[in-house]
Amino acid sequence: MPFFNQLFAVRGFLIQETKPKLLKAISAVAPGIERKIPSLQGAGDPFSYVSDELELVEDNLKRAIRSREQILTDIAAHLIYGGGKRVRPMVTLLAFLAFGGKRTKDIVDIATAIELIHTATLLHDDIIDGAEIRRGKESAYKKFGLKSTLVTGDFLFIKAFEFAGKFDETIVQWTADACALLTEGEMLQGFFNRNRAVTLDDYVEIVKRKTASLFQTGAKIGAYLAGANAPLVDETERYGLNMGIAFQMVDDILDVVGHSELLGKPTGMDLRDGNPALPIILALNESQPAVCEAFERSRPTDNQITIALDAIKAGSAIQQAKSLSKSYAEEALKSVKKLPPSLYRNGLKTLVQLIIERDF
Amino acid sequence: MPFFNQLFAVRGFLIQETKPKLLKAISAVAPGIERKIPSLQGAGDPFSYVSDELELVEDNLKRAIRSREQILTDIAAHLIYGGGKRVRPMVTLLAFLAFGGKRTKDIVDIATAIELIHTATLLHDDIIDGAEIRRGKESAYKKFGLKSTLVTGDFLFIKAFEFAGKFDETIVQWTADACALLTEGEMLQGFFNRNRAVTLDDYVEIVKRKTASLFQTGAKIGAYLAGANAPLVDETERYGLNMGIAFQMVDDILDVVGHSELLGKPTGMDLRDGNPALPIILALNESQPAVCEAFERSRPTDNQITIALDAIKAGSAIQQAKSLSKSYAEEALKSVKKLPPSLYRNGLKTLVQLIIERDF
Repeated sequence: MPFFNQLFAVRGFLIQETKPKLLKAISAVAPGIERKIPSLQGAGDPFSYVSDELELVEDNLKRAIRSREQILTDIAAHLIYGGGKRVRPMVTLLAFLAFGGKRTKDIVDIATAIELIHTATLLHDDIIDGAEIRRGKESAYKKFGLKSTLVTGDFLFIKAFEFAGKFDETIVQWTADACALLTEGEMLQGFFNRNRAVTLDDYVEIVKRKTASLFQTGAKIGAYLAGANAPLVDETERYGLNMGIAFQMVDDILDVVGHSELLGKPTGMDLRDGNPALPIILALNESQPAVCEAFERSRPTDNQITIALDAIKAGSAIQQAKSLSKSYAEEALKSVKKLPPSLYRNGLKTLVQLIIERDF
Repeated sequence: MPFFNQLFAVRGFLIQETKPKLLKAISAVAPGIERKIPSLQGAGDPFSYVSDELELVEDNLKRAIRSREQILTDIAAHLIYGGGKRVRPMVTLLAFLAFGGKRTKDIVDIATAIELIHTATLLHDDIIDGAEIRRGKESAYKKFGLKSTLVTGDFLFIKAFEFAGKFDETIVQWTADACALLTEGEMLQGFFNRNRAVTLDDYVEIVKRKTASLFQTGAKIGAYLAGANAPLVDETERYGLNMGIAFQMVDDILDVVGHSELLGKPTGMDLRDGNPALPIILALNESQPAVCEAFERSRPTDNQITIALDAIKAGSAIQQAKSLSKSYAEEALKSVKKLPPSLYRNGLKTLVQLIIERDF
């Protein structure tokens, strides 16, 4: 999620070094690999509110990826310590703490499971997309090959199951439903790959399943485990859903207008891969021939991509996409307002605001 | 597991049609696809002892593979109704009933989870091996492509989690451990792919992880859920472990000396794929140059495979392999003897005997 690095840099927040203890713990698993957990200074900093809990998530992740087969650990570490900003765990933890949740270990285990599921799907996605780059470096698929990457994805799914499987049937069911949604979203997205019949409704359905489901489920479980009443659990779930949709929309917009150094990958990847991303769909609606050609073609040239990106930027697609992402973010904020006031509620709010207020 | 078809044909047992109700249920999901659950007639028939419970497993499987994305259901059905003989569920159910287990629904759910995990790994294995044929027909990978097959494997893992995740922490942990072992076995097998450094010990380690772990865990959970005491749970686990090892050894032997029509796939697949299978390892120990050449070569020709298979048959590898499989089967029988006498114990015994007594 290079998005967050950029986000905080733009807003002038200080990005702190990871605490030494954490860094040491991580280095033990993956020597030579450093990662930073950004920590905003000042009011409403969502990271600082849950930094202790995020450290426990890191401890869990470190233990989870241990295997007698070193290569499984290496591949998992490649992605786990490859720049993920733990946004899903953060939402999960904040939702729990916003309702005064006490048994930290429980929510830390759920947050761990959710990050593991996310990581597993990234590994499998890279195989599916044939992706060479992930988070600014060589993808596991490119570096370690199909076989090992596929099996490591399975391994991480299994480890997630270990963490989430100890909870009551409701939580197990919600987690399984979120995972099933992910796979269904993947299939739906595949169906609309390079398929100009895709509509905005199709897009929202894909994003709900593929991206928002883990945010939604993490938020819901957080509230539920903290003992929130049913209407508030639903409200928190809606927060996660709408925040997750806005999050993906911003990602899609950045793939057109972002800077590759900050994104950690080239722009135009969605066009290259034929992914039905938001600005592409909106540009298709404007019947832009260059976009249509690059999107439908199985191997668009670099030149075609550049021309199509320029066409998207020249039209109103980006403006429309920003407006859509803001409307989902605003829905998320409406849900936040219904939560009891607390520091953690502020954290949930700031997260959304960072998305809304950002100057593209 | 075409092994069982052959097994029962050889022994002259009657293979019954699936009960109409079951067939109807299955047809509803996958029209035009028929499958048979073989049912031995007479004493010690392990299938007939658990046929009612196996029907409930079928009901579960049918529900499990339902998805809003029809393609996920289709691919899952392709394999689920593609000739699997439910040996793992059978061992699980028999172990439970051998200890007088009463809550059938529980063990049926575990048996379902185990079959789903097995099926998920087959889908991913076919991608890894680039397999074109599975159980006598086109593999899902060949028929539906990498992407959809990979995601369906994930989907089935998740569904397994749904079934197993409702149980206590012990069972969740055992199931997760079995799955982790499967992935570690896959990596270890990959390490020894076309690698003549592989030893018999390596082989047993791979098979323990890759094949025996689900038998072992199913048997263990069966005994545990039925309330067996700890030493007997361990004994039942040993049964599953040794039975599973013998089972894989027989599979490996059949890949050399079996008949392709009965196996549902060509013989010599292990040599073709460079899999470190038992007869190959034993022939390598005999320093057979033709076997060594075919095994180490990245794309052995049909002629090289034929010559290597003949060389394996001419040496003592098959005899040694049979002897090894028998010794593991005998270990499993020793465990059976320590279980309380019952019809279901007889079923567990017969299963092993079918492996031992079979005339290759």
